[in-house]
Amino acid sequence: MPVANINPTRLWRRLLELGEIGKDPAGGVTRLAFTPADREARELVMEWMRGAGLTVRVDAIGNIFARLEGTAPGRGVVLLASHLDTVPQGGRFDGALGVLAALEAVETLVERGLKPQQPVEVGVFVNEEGARFKGGLLGSSAVVHGVTPEELRQLVDDQGISCYQALADFGLDPEQVAAARRSPAEFAAYLELHIEQAAVLEAEGLPVGVVTGIAGPKFITVRLTGRADHAGATPMHLRRDALAGAAELILAAERIAREEAGPATVCTVGQIRVAPGATNVIPGSCEFSLDLRDIQLEDRERAETRLKVEFERVCRRRGLEGEWLPGEGFPPVRLDESMVTLLGTACREAGQREFRLVSGAAHDAMQFAGVCPVGMLFVRSVDGISHSPEEYTTPEDAAVGAEVLFHALCQLVAAR
Amino acid sequence: MPVANINPTRLWRRLLELGEIGKDPAGGVTRLAFTPADREARELVMEWMRGAGLTVRVDAIGNIFARLEGTAPGRGVVLLASHLDTVPQGGRFDGALGVLAALEAVETLVERGLKPQQPVEVGVFVNEEGARFKGGLLGSSAVVHGVTPEELRQLVDDQGISCYQALADFGLDPEQVAAARRSPAEFAAYLELHIEQAAVLEAEGLPVGVVTGIAGPKFITVRLTGRADHAGATPMHLRRDALAGAAELILAAERIAREEAGPATVCTVGQIRVAPGATNVIPGSCEFSLDLRDIQLEDRERAETRLKVEFERVCRRRGLEGEWLPGEGFPPVRLDESMVTLLGTACREAGQREFRLVSGAAHDAMQFAGVCPVGMLFVRSVDGISHSPEEYTTPEDAAVGAEVLFHALCQLVAAR
Repeated sequence: MPVANINPTRLWRRLLELGEIGKDPAGGVTRLAFTPADREARELVMEWMRGAGLTVRVDAIGNIFARLEGTAPGRGVVLLASHLDTVPQGGRFDGALGVLAALEAVETLVERGLKPQQPVEVGVFVNEEGARFKGGLLGSSAVVHGVTPEELRQLVDDQGISCYQALADFGLDPEQVAAARRSPAEFAAYLELHIEQAAVLEAEGLPVGVVTGIAGPKFITVRLTGRADHAGATPMHLRRDALAGAAELILAAERIAREEAGPATVCTVGQIRVAPGATNVIPGSCEFSLDLRDIQLEDRERAETRLKVEFERVCRRRGLEGEWLPGEGFPPVRLDESMVTLLGTACREAGQREFRLVSGAAHDAMQFAGVCPVGMLFVRSVDGISHSPEEYTTPEDAAVGAEVLFHALCQLVAAR
Repeated sequence: MPVANINPTRLWRRLLELGEIGKDPAGGVTRLAFTPADREARELVMEWMRGAGLTVRVDAIGNIFARLEGTAPGRGVVLLASHLDTVPQGGRFDGALGVLAALEAVETLVERGLKPQQPVEVGVFVNEEGARFKGGLLGSSAVVHGVTPEELRQLVDDQGISCYQALADFGLDPEQVAAARRSPAEFAAYLELHIEQAAVLEAEGLPVGVVTGIAGPKFITVRLTGRADHAGATPMHLRRDALAGAAELILAAERIAREEAGPATVCTVGQIRVAPGATNVIPGSCEFSLDLRDIQLEDRERAETRLKVEFERVCRRRGLEGEWLPGEGFPPVRLDESMVTLLGTACREAGQREFRLVSGAAHDAMQFAGVCPVGMLFVRSVDGISHSPEEYTTPEDAAVGAEVLFHALCQLVAAR
């Protein structure tokens, strides 16, 4: 009787239906923030939210909040949230399972006639992935820290479209974006369910786990400028090849993360562009992204320092001009002990073993760490694969996750 | 009195006017084959050709031939040719100087009332660079070897447009492309003037040099497939990062060309693409171009063999699937001794020191090596820079080049 409350069939059917939106011809789901696919997914989910009897509103940056009022006046909101945007050719579960499991938990509450003391909201945050507008966690950042129109203007996607423009095209008023900010006093608790995106739960043979901390990411853009010359006529020793310099740094990043930083350090170069970009021209410039993460801030900072030294050495030795452009960074986050305990109890109530683990990936939950007690629940990913068309979570595990979330929600809204 | 015959002002004015067409907002000239910019450049040059009294025709693949009839019946054509397409953000002289110097030489002949015994043609070959449709030397290949509609269908640009489609969009009938082929018996001699694209003439303090041989290029596409995983959640030791594999091969290509092949071997990775291409996703696949060249075929082949071994080692060690896709290759070419002598004489007639050198870059001239006597003249490139917005040749050097070409042409059309 592990899944005795929520409706597993409804949850799975919605996951599959949602996963059809933004299907990429090259495989997987591509649902970048503020694109038509994103809009279609949001409309469908809002329809389900309204069908569950929730009051839906869209805030100034496009976040969705579907609210169930509480019985006790003046209480803070219990927010259950995640995201609907994906990386290019991503999976059907990253973000989507969190939103639909939250809706499933709240809808079950409503269907069972349970009245929460606090208001409960199901939240959808925009541009969590940062696949379109770099940095990610944009919607949750707008709610917790506030975002200015100027910041939206400076976020520009690969097509040269600013986030300011994208918001306007989406039917929102980017000048009003600051209004998305909400006072910390509004929130009583934050809960997020997410797929693990790693293989720890699979190794443990467990469908769910309670997250105790989240690795902090740091994003850096590196630009190298050499000289575009003819590939046939320029001898090897006279070249200033920007891509060859980048290749050295890509390997250095790998080596430093693997051998020189901490045991949990990871570093990824996920984007790279060369100009002019012809087979017979030596790359005159090259730009690439660096994504550095660690659960220990000192280890991440050591990796960054080592890599910066390497960057300067490569530029000097190859006669390249280099630009090291640090982007957004988030410190690692330790989750609230009371929420870890509460989620552990919820696991046991749902017939599961209580198991604790850390998150290598960033989540909107990080933003709320300073605002209210934050809890996070992971659901097993098959083979640990994520950000890939092969991303998968079984219907059974998805249902167990939603069931645990329902138990945690019941405790929260009765206890507070 | 080095430049006593041709009109240096007209030549320079035309170069500047032509260089305005396809000006790239990011710098330099972008005039890819069969694009509106290419068309505009061609129209302008054809107008000048007609103005010089030449009969202009466009062949089945879009090559332009501007003809001056000869006085003696049944003689082979003396063809002076080059190209008008450029690499992305290329220069104003690569190809363009060859076409305009050829026109200047022939126009001077006409203006002086000199009657050539052989017919003389000024030729413009399409897609020489291979910047749009890989491989390059397409127009000259169609004339010398013939090209089929099927081959045009298989040449696809970065936008997914086939060369077949591009030709149709350009107003040509791709089904008729085989008609561009001309019999070897039609040609008496081939002459091409081109900027050096290297710094040998500058080091010698000479405006022009006679080419004795052309390095042969070999183009290879490499595709690596690993697994797209989450950049935060996937530990370093569980990654199958396609870009990290590519980085190893980019550095291997550099090292092999520099240290392990021949003294003149060059190898370039000019294009690279990763998928899915998001900052927070490990690249699941990576494709890049290899451009290998040498004046000695054995050295180039040794470099290719070494690199292939390296490719297999990297794939094995990193658990990547690899595809090694050899594209077009051209053997190095030794130019005709009689033409080298003739161009040397023309240099002296124009008051220049006779100097011989080799070409690292490929040229349409290579195609005619088995067809008729081929000669090539290089004009000094400032700093040896080419395929770059900074590409430059002085008006004085351009004029000397055209003057030498005029002397060579006079010898050819009187002597045969």
